Amino acid sequence: MHGYQHEDLPADELARQEDLYGPFTQSVRELVDATLRTTVDEEEVRRAQAEIEAVTARLRASTMEGSYGVRYSSDGTTRPWGNAVVGLRNPVAPPLAFDRHPEGRATSDFTLGAAYEGPPGLVHGGVSALILDQALGEACGAGGRPGMTGGLTLTYRRPTRMGRLRCEAWIADRDGYKTVARGTIGDADGATVEAEGIFIVPKWARGLFDARNTDRPDRFE
Amino acid sequence: MHGYQHEDLPADELARQEDLYGPFTQSVRELVDATLRTTVDEEEVRRAQAEIEAVTARLRASTMEGSYGVRYSSDGTTRPWGNAVVGLRNPVAPPLAFDRHPEGRATSDFTLGAAYEGPPGLVHGGVSALILDQALGEACGAGGRPGMTGGLTLTYRRPTRMGRLRCEAWIADRDGYKTVARGTIGDADGATVEAEGIFIVPKWARGLFDARNTDRPDRFE
Repeated sequence: MHGYQHEDLPADELARQEDLYGPFTQSVRELVDATLRTTVDEEEVRRAQAEIEAVTARLRASTMEGSYGVRYSSDGTTRPWGNAVVGLRNPVAPPLAFDRHPEGRATSDFTLGAAYEGPPGLVHGGVSALILDQALGEACGAGGRPGMTGGLTLTYRRPTRMGRLRCEAWIADRDGYKTVARGTIGDADGATVEAEGIFIVPKWARGLFDARNTDRPDRFE
Repeated sequence: MHGYQHEDLPADELARQEDLYGPFTQSVRELVDATLRTTVDEEEVRRAQAEIEAVTARLRASTMEGSYGVRYSSDGTTRPWGNAVVGLRNPVAPPLAFDRHPEGRATSDFTLGAAYEGPPGLVHGGVSALILDQALGEACGAGGRPGMTGGLTLTYRRPTRMGRLRCEAWIADRDGYKTVARGTIGDADGATVEAEGIFIVPKWARGLFDARNTDRPDRFE
């Protein structure tokens, strides 16, 4: 089973959820940063912990089973709100917002702070890999060729400093159910990390793919 | 500048910090999961947001400048507490704890929940890349050959389901300042993702490396 969940939401309900969960999740991202960087005294830390535990208990009074998953509407739009890179409801996600172009290209400007650190002051090399995996997949999806990652190769040209960054990805080659995508992460001085990946249309989605149902490119990302 | 910060802590102060920040950060990880999965009503979400913002404001009354970085003691132990994979103080980190073996091998058993999702019910392919980058670096460090990632290649054998997982990494080849490491992530049925990476001793650390100062293998991870 692919696990994608059909859930039609009226436009006003979708807007209500975005307006509710977007700022709520962002408040937890701010807390994540403060948790990592605070230097307040022990008593204050313990008090914060007790209050956080109380909030968590109230939020857990009612929860969905398992993970958020990816939900889609009859018009073909999707809500990957649990996604670790772009998820509106996922505090682990920075989150990135991608501009997607139908020729098979995706770009995003974003900021990475202290929670994404590897070496001191630098973005974790694996975080760059995480973001590039998503970016290459977005480019494939934008071009009507969504798929699961089959292989990914990263080349680290120079260190990536935390702060304002940009990633770009594009389809480089098309071959049946396989798509090759390339991309970069970089700063104002150019690319710091380059990536190439192979994305494969999963078996359960090939009928849909064969029917060239490209008006729903997001369906199986 | 490499940015590694020398900070000697007496054993009892180190224990105090671990006992304070470990559970505190874990409480925020639980909140992250609850934030993503809650289905409580709108009023309760707004109340949670207000309380979280109040806690964040109090924690921000005093913060370190920039990120946590990596701090080391005179005995060679390090505290990568801000690290996105293993950081004790980083709520984004699952966190993984590695067993390190001096022949150049590192292993970790860990659990990934809803915050690390990509496709529905599955670990984000980029999260596997993130964890494998760290694991390969840990293997290099364990073998006295720490370095920065120069290149990383991932091969996805089959989907990785969320839940209990294991990663293993080992040094495969040694060549001057370069180390080749390999590793896998997998479940009870075996490997789901394989990785190979090249790790390079940074220029500023080569004097230390040449002196075979291998009793401080963690110093420049």
